Amino acid sequence: MIGIFDSGFGGLTTLKELLKYMPENDYIYLGDSARAPYGNRSMKTIIEYTEQCVDFLFSRGASIVLLACNTASSDALRFLQKKYATDEQNKKVLGVLIPAVEKALETSRYGRIGLVATRGTVEAKNYDIELAKRKHLFSSSEKKAQKEPTLSSQSCPLLVPLIEEGWIKKPETKSILKKYILPLKTHNIDTLILGCTHYPLLEKQFAKKMGKNCTIINSGKAQAEKFVLYLNNHPEIKKNLSSKKTIHFFTTDCPERFKHLGQKFLGRGIGEVEKVSF
Amino acid sequence: MIGIFDSGFGGLTTLKELLKYMPENDYIYLGDSARAPYGNRSMKTIIEYTEQCVDFLFSRGASIVLLACNTASSDALRFLQKKYATDEQNKKVLGVLIPAVEKALETSRYGRIGLVATRGTVEAKNYDIELAKRKHLFSSSEKKAQKEPTLSSQSCPLLVPLIEEGWIKKPETKSILKKYILPLKTHNIDTLILGCTHYPLLEKQFAKKMGKNCTIINSGKAQAEKFVLYLNNHPEIKKNLSSKKTIHFFTTDCPERFKHLGQKFLGRGIGEVEKVSF
Repeated sequence: MIGIFDSGFGGLTTLKELLKYMPENDYIYLGDSARAPYGNRSMKTIIEYTEQCVDFLFSRGASIVLLACNTASSDALRFLQKKYATDEQNKKVLGVLIPAVEKALETSRYGRIGLVATRGTVEAKNYDIELAKRKHLFSSSEKKAQKEPTLSSQSCPLLVPLIEEGWIKKPETKSILKKYILPLKTHNIDTLILGCTHYPLLEKQFAKKMGKNCTIINSGKAQAEKFVLYLNNHPEIKKNLSSKKTIHFFTTDCPERFKHLGQKFLGRGIGEVEKVSF
Repeated sequence: MIGIFDSGFGGLTTLKELLKYMPENDYIYLGDSARAPYGNRSMKTIIEYTEQCVDFLFSRGASIVLLACNTASSDALRFLQKKYATDEQNKKVLGVLIPAVEKALETSRYGRIGLVATRGTVEAKNYDIELAKRKHLFSSSEKKAQKEPTLSSQSCPLLVPLIEEGWIKKPETKSILKKYILPLKTHNIDTLILGCTHYPLLEKQFAKKMGKNCTIINSGKAQAEKFVLYLNNHPEIKKNLSSKKTIHFFTTDCPERFKHLGQKFLGRGIGEVEKVSF
């Protein structure tokens, strides 16, 4: 079973992408909505909460867990990978940062990459670290291309509440979005990573404001794509994944609210949702 | 010792008011910032979290606890009062709704009262219930006054994130505020309850938009005023309150962040802050 963890509903955009590539597999999703959003919390708190949630997914039968949440990936992935490194059952935890960074480096024409994310993700600077480690993936035949790729980051703390309110098309959201991306536009970004699972709901607005010369990278989509490649490279993991086409949903808050809001992110109806407490 | 509980920093506006009336007393403040905001959570989750926090304040020496948080008062007060009703040490828990409703009824000229609050507070309808129970407190000599007071409520879920971002004077905040209060203006409200501890930071903006014929009730201020009266009517409780002018601050998230943001709400510097986990 493939486990997917997010602080709330956003990770359902990643599940949506995974279902396109691997509709046969079994999934278990946990959204920690009672304690969401993680974006503005301290690193220690984010590690504590993420550990509880990942342990839960393993205890319910997941053999591999994807952290769809950028904040959790940024702050807690290394801690969790260390924790499970010596695990006998070979439990795996994968984050969303590396797939998004790889995709951005492969896509970028001039090496001017931008990141929009929560405050926690931006301040942790893990996107910068992962990009620096992988700069060899960037190659360009463009004359005006930089020798080395650079990352310009912008935290957008008001976008998650605006999206959760459904204020996608309101003028205030457009105006706030414009303010956030202004510094990125002055850096002439050619590739923009949407480093938060909520942001794909504003993908069109981002694309419009950034203009046609900027490619938008949906981090959940990149995670799903790279996960498929990862499984092809690790047949021993792939063959152990069950495939009965089941999806189990869990939330730490009200199941009814999860069902209602979750549909927007998954793009289809959600069946039974169970509540879990920590 | 007087305990004050809030889901985050907002309750510091209540502590600020209390310190004006009772600067000699000892206070213990807990902000559950790691799990804030409570406003959009389910009732069951709000009860569970509030109970943990109130138990903590009692365990640390509080003899009476004020729930500064409107959402917690609305959803968890009755449960907690029942829990401590038979307590041998006579522990008391008081909320913010009744003081705010009393103040609004005493203030209103025409009986057209408005409420702005989080979604949780509005949907729980406890302000409506408390107002209906106390409608006898409304009396007016105005010709155009209603016979019975009415309450028009509006949830403003985006104001807490905007305030926490410090976007107090931005045009987007003004525009969003205008949208929220439009329905209240059409009801010709003469008294508006700010039913969330964050909202006093936007008090001037609310006052300006509502116009001079509308009186603004700061629920934290009302809670502090009514608490002073309560203690005067209960000398047996008052005499047991210690008064060494101490204030202890606790938070469930990063103490540094609490110190930094808390100052804006308390209107003065904050000393040592301890972290607590549940």
